[in-house]
Amino acid sequence: MTMTEEPTANQGFKWVGTRSIRPDGFEKVTGKARFGADLMLPGMIEGAVLRSPHAHARILSIDTSAAAAMPGVKAVITGADFPEPAEVVRGQADLDMCNNAIARDKVLYEGHVVAAVAATTREEARRAVAAIKVQYELLPHVLTVDEAMAPGAVLLHPDMITKGADPAPTEPSNVASRVVQQRGDLDQGFADADVVVEREFTTKPVHQGYIEPHAAVADATNKGRATVWCSSQGHFSMRTMSAKVLGWDPSRLKVIPAEIGGGFGGKTVIYLEPLAVMLSVKAGRPVRMVMGRDEVLKATGPASGTKIRVKMGVKNDGTITAADVWMAFEAGAYAGSPVGAASMTALSCYDIPHFMIEGFDVVVNKPRVAAYRAPGGPMAAFAVESIVDELASKIGMDPIELRLKNAAVEGTQAPYGPKFPRIGFVETLEAVKNHPQYSEPLGPNQGRGVASGFWFNAGMNSSAVVHVNEDGNITVVTGSPDIGGSRASMALMAAEEFGIDVARVQPVVADTETVGFNDTTGGSRVTFATGMAVIDACRKVKDELRARAAKQWEVEVDQVEWVDGQAQMLDGSKPPVTLVDLAKGWGRTGGPISATAALNARGAGAGFSTQVCDVEVDPETGHVTILRYTTAQDAGRAIHPSYVEGQLQGGVVQGIGWALNEEYIYNSEGHLDNASFLDYRIPVASDLPMIDTIVVEVPNPTHPYGVRGVGEVGIVPPLAAVANAIAAATGKRLVDLPMSPVRVLDAILND
Amino acid sequence: MTMTEEPTANQGFKWVGTRSIRPDGFEKVTGKARFGADLMLPGMIEGAVLRSPHAHARILSIDTSAAAAMPGVKAVITGADFPEPAEVVRGQADLDMCNNAIARDKVLYEGHVVAAVAATTREEARRAVAAIKVQYELLPHVLTVDEAMAPGAVLLHPDMITKGADPAPTEPSNVASRVVQQRGDLDQGFADADVVVEREFTTKPVHQGYIEPHAAVADATNKGRATVWCSSQGHFSMRTMSAKVLGWDPSRLKVIPAEIGGGFGGKTVIYLEPLAVMLSVKAGRPVRMVMGRDEVLKATGPASGTKIRVKMGVKNDGTITAADVWMAFEAGAYAGSPVGAASMTALSCYDIPHFMIEGFDVVVNKPRVAAYRAPGGPMAAFAVESIVDELASKIGMDPIELRLKNAAVEGTQAPYGPKFPRIGFVETLEAVKNHPQYSEPLGPNQGRGVASGFWFNAGMNSSAVVHVNEDGNITVVTGSPDIGGSRASMALMAAEEFGIDVARVQPVVADTETVGFNDTTGGSRVTFATGMAVIDACRKVKDELRARAAKQWEVEVDQVEWVDGQAQMLDGSKPPVTLVDLAKGWGRTGGPISATAALNARGAGAGFSTQVCDVEVDPETGHVTILRYTTAQDAGRAIHPSYVEGQLQGGVVQGIGWALNEEYIYNSEGHLDNASFLDYRIPVASDLPMIDTIVVEVPNPTHPYGVRGVGEVGIVPPLAAVANAIAAATGKRLVDLPMSPVRVLDAILND
Repeated sequence: MTMTEEPTANQGFKWVGTRSIRPDGFEKVTGKARFGADLMLPGMIEGAVLRSPHAHARILSIDTSAAAAMPGVKAVITGADFPEPAEVVRGQADLDMCNNAIARDKVLYEGHVVAAVAATTREEARRAVAAIKVQYELLPHVLTVDEAMAPGAVLLHPDMITKGADPAPTEPSNVASRVVQQRGDLDQGFADADVVVEREFTTKPVHQGYIEPHAAVADATNKGRATVWCSSQGHFSMRTMSAKVLGWDPSRLKVIPAEIGGGFGGKTVIYLEPLAVMLSVKAGRPVRMVMGRDEVLKATGPASGTKIRVKMGVKNDGTITAADVWMAFEAGAYAGSPVGAASMTALSCYDIPHFMIEGFDVVVNKPRVAAYRAPGGPMAAFAVESIVDELASKIGMDPIELRLKNAAVEGTQAPYGPKFPRIGFVETLEAVKNHPQYSEPLGPNQGRGVASGFWFNAGMNSSAVVHVNEDGNITVVTGSPDIGGSRASMALMAAEEFGIDVARVQPVVADTETVGFNDTTGGSRVTFATGMAVIDACRKVKDELRARAAKQWEVEVDQVEWVDGQAQMLDGSKPPVTLVDLAKGWGRTGGPISATAALNARGAGAGFSTQVCDVEVDPETGHVTILRYTTAQDAGRAIHPSYVEGQLQGGVVQGIGWALNEEYIYNSEGHLDNASFLDYRIPVASDLPMIDTIVVEVPNPTHPYGVRGVGEVGIVPPLAAVANAIAAATGKRLVDLPMSPVRVLDAILND
Repeated sequence: MTMTEEPTANQGFKWVGTRSIRPDGFEKVTGKARFGADLMLPGMIEGAVLRSPHAHARILSIDTSAAAAMPGVKAVITGADFPEPAEVVRGQADLDMCNNAIARDKVLYEGHVVAAVAATTREEARRAVAAIKVQYELLPHVLTVDEAMAPGAVLLHPDMITKGADPAPTEPSNVASRVVQQRGDLDQGFADADVVVEREFTTKPVHQGYIEPHAAVADATNKGRATVWCSSQGHFSMRTMSAKVLGWDPSRLKVIPAEIGGGFGGKTVIYLEPLAVMLSVKAGRPVRMVMGRDEVLKATGPASGTKIRVKMGVKNDGTITAADVWMAFEAGAYAGSPVGAASMTALSCYDIPHFMIEGFDVVVNKPRVAAYRAPGGPMAAFAVESIVDELASKIGMDPIELRLKNAAVEGTQAPYGPKFPRIGFVETLEAVKNHPQYSEPLGPNQGRGVASGFWFNAGMNSSAVVHVNEDGNITVVTGSPDIGGSRASMALMAAEEFGIDVARVQPVVADTETVGFNDTTGGSRVTFATGMAVIDACRKVKDELRARAAKQWEVEVDQVEWVDGQAQMLDGSKPPVTLVDLAKGWGRTGGPISATAALNARGAGAGFSTQVCDVEVDPETGHVTILRYTTAQDAGRAIHPSYVEGQLQGGVVQGIGWALNEEYIYNSEGHLDNASFLDYRIPVASDLPMIDTIVVEVPNPTHPYGVRGVGEVGIVPPLAAVANAIAAATGKRLVDLPMSPVRVLDAILND
């Protein structure tokens, strides 16, 4: 359906599926919403960070004495102020996190934190940072997987032995790990094929590109306790991770969520938080730290640069017989690229009898990568869906028909193991096939590309508390930062449960002290998992409300039902009593009414998206114009359709930027040459048509309302969809991102 | 016991009864704790209030045009900006509250709010306030109950008919209501007596004298929603009351509790809050309002001035046969003095066969009175306990023996109806009798006085949420502002429940959105009622922890017990699993762990206090020196003995101030002549000896740990104890408070 249509699937719901006014809208459009940098505290001072100017170097000495003596300076910290990671954390990932937070003996990328200063003003802090004297011993650096995997490459971590390799290597390397998924017999599969295509693809690191830079305020109070305000996707995770760096119990930190001006996976990582806490401990004052855009680009995010080879075979009837996928992902300076997730998603749209997926997590002297919307999925799909498109073209089959013929359906075994329950991939393919765009004629230099994508979505831990107010209105408290409209969806689900106007529900995102533990807002999990906790807590409250009515009526609670905001007798023998009246009378029936619920959610419904992109390529400049774009995605159930559509559109838009323009440009010194939004080009409104959305609703059977995650899968297809459209327009298949004018022109001109 | 002894009653408890470090101590001694005036918000502006200069006047017109045009002024409000009270609230008390918040047609006391301004700076706001032109028509005023009850007195509320009078009057008066309690036959009772004493007592209005002036910040966001930060004893009540004045649903306000720098009952009332909200609505900016001390004294609090006549009869054997108590309490400008509570407490220490208590609530042209620590109790006890002392003296009986002979015990019917359950009055009498002070010899001009007091204590609505943190530490969330150490007592009770170190429990006072409804912190109710909610929530969490362990062990939950911070098999068949490990593993057993509990607490245990005071009176100046003071009070159970002792001492100190120095001095114009802490004299450290405390522990059978309230009853006896000591020292019985040097000297010199 298009933007102007309403979802069809609002069966039996009163509030779920409606486009209610967003609870946080007024604050956001009037500037009242407080983001990370907006907090002021009495006595607050400002922090600044000294970052490595080198891609790889040993720290010989740090002399902070001059800085510490400068006017206004209240505290200077280096890695030596923090406990040795090995003494406070276990596991390589936590060690890496600690070392990424602040360097000890080595810096591993340009932008790596070396020291930090807190002073009365930001200017004073910056001047003091400039006065810190660091002696470095420069080391050779590696910037790409090719360089890092080359024999004799300099090692970032001289003790790192590849995990998951078979046989286990005896020598260290820059390959942190190897992941493999396979089934069937690859040789047999390719032997069965009539057509085989193989290509190698590369993608560059790209940044999540959130508008709001990282910001944190810390106020250390008693020894070993502090309050932190920060903009993040998960204040509980910020607490956990910061505590590890500090060597504290997590519950000694209170983290208060600021509004978040975009995250897209990149605000799941700590950067400033433990520095601000330690500066505050040393200064005895609240400390605010705010990154500049250059720091954001040099030291946070990005998504991995990748090199991916895909070989696939197909019969002339369209049966895909085999797929061989080789992927190497840049992890940045520490292990942890999403190559594992990429391997889970690469082939999951299809039922392929013989396949092999092999992935490598490779460290390079660049910032440690962070999650970015369906992490790993877009790069894998760029390669696989380009090949699928080429296969369709080679056998002369419509690309949607080819996908339909091989599509994963209920019962298909996913490449990573489990069998799919009811999924909506076929429905997304049919939706695009039937959309007017798919049959609209194209003009000269124009082309149409189709691509699909898969994302497994996440469940994880969520807690919620629901309170009845004295006026009978409802407060829904969760600990999941609202990055994509979750306040609205929580309010709608609660309104549905209680049968009251959604305006009577106040959704609140609470700090780490006033709601139970919540995992990070990521993995498209919040409306699904936190939503289930909210529904569960609402149902407990309804049970209590029924019990209160039963007490009032002196009947058994099983004689009382809850309908449309009121308790009523099953036999209708008494006038119903409303939520408002039950709240007014709670003093007589047992006091105020609240309930908590918590769960580790299982059964996240897999998400699928199919997209069609029409482009026009300027043969003289290589510039690609997106003419029209439609995305069909299975939401399971669209709780708030406008937000779902916004997620679908946002994923496409970011994917288009990734496809056409965005890239980290490193020079040979390992310095980022385009660390600003002037030189790192994200799409703006004038680059884009309105993105048409088709919200498919194949309910997830494990969620009470059928919710699947919607936030991520939408970014999986666009890289390939755009590439396929360019191939259709130009006859040239581009395999290296971004497909910027110079690359497109090069492809056109140099056959 | 003295300050240096530990309570004896810590039977079977590990944490309850210990003197743990106060959770809020560091912040408070380092200045980090944020009180009402400490909040800064981006764009915040400052408010100021125009108050009536007259004790009683009709408002003919208010011209705000000049003020509104002044530099920096962003908003001006008058009563006309608020809805008509009669249209938004029902009930005289709510109407009065609205009219007290901001005057409409009449001002009823000096300091009554007439208008308010918000401007960029406080100076600009004050200048604009001064530029508001108000035309008044002056009216006669009444300042005392005698003036107000006199025939032909000017009426504050021309329609007010006395409630509870018999027969019901047909004419309006300044008497808002009459309360009566009686039993037996008064004539018979006095006929049975060998000695009868009758006297008339007066007390002046006194202020609660909290250090922190009232302060509020309001930030109105969307139409009809606002966030308010304020220092109060109950942010839920602040929300309810402010919402009534504004005509809003309470849940449209979010009230965030600031730390509170003293309340003593006086911060249960709204003053600035609705004004700040309305100014913020009109200005579109956050608005901060902070009272000066003169405003605090002229327009908040105070406790009622009173006139009380008591006649009591006693047999020579010490049996009190009859008591006749007549009380008239100043309500200030609107009905609502604590004369009802005074009538409940006046005679409740004793089992008297024949009595009559008659009380009148009388409006006068002074600020509307507010609760002050055991509201009404001290004035009633001043009169009754002075008479009891005189009776003892007249029949030559030790005053403690006389009280013991007539003491209320378990089964005694309280004057207000119910029979007492187990109470600890006799134990307090015995404790004082056995205290060294009671038998210490006195010197010339020295005297010893004894007095007792009763307070019923309150229960009411409380909610709590308890969360397990990922590190196995516990967060206890309540909505009861911590005015006397309740964070510490909540943490201790939770530690006791879980069997973990109290340092692992973080007590949190949450805002109105993140915890269920809580009634005001008052009535000595919090450790009792909120404590029960906390214990209940902890027990639910423990049940869940046992269930998680059972799940892990694949056994029935009834095979698992919780002991000392860990789950263990009843039969010891498995190694115990700690809270820390259960938290670490929650993802495998069902997710995070939290629980709520709420109740309308019944069965608050009545509190009794007996005190002995030694004074020396300077015969040349009339100055009274408190030589030594011991207070014995039944706490039921002292959860944190240091805080209990602090409450006992604080009550005595405030009572000494009330007895000796504090008073509102009104001139004939109805203007307060001593509206500053220079002229309104509260006791300072050098005025006082260390107050010895004896914490009696007769457990309240209705609380799991035996808690009674401790905050209030300690202020009930001191007025009489000091008066009785002065009588013993001088032979003169003073019946008018304060017993300032001039009054004492007058009594000494003029027989």
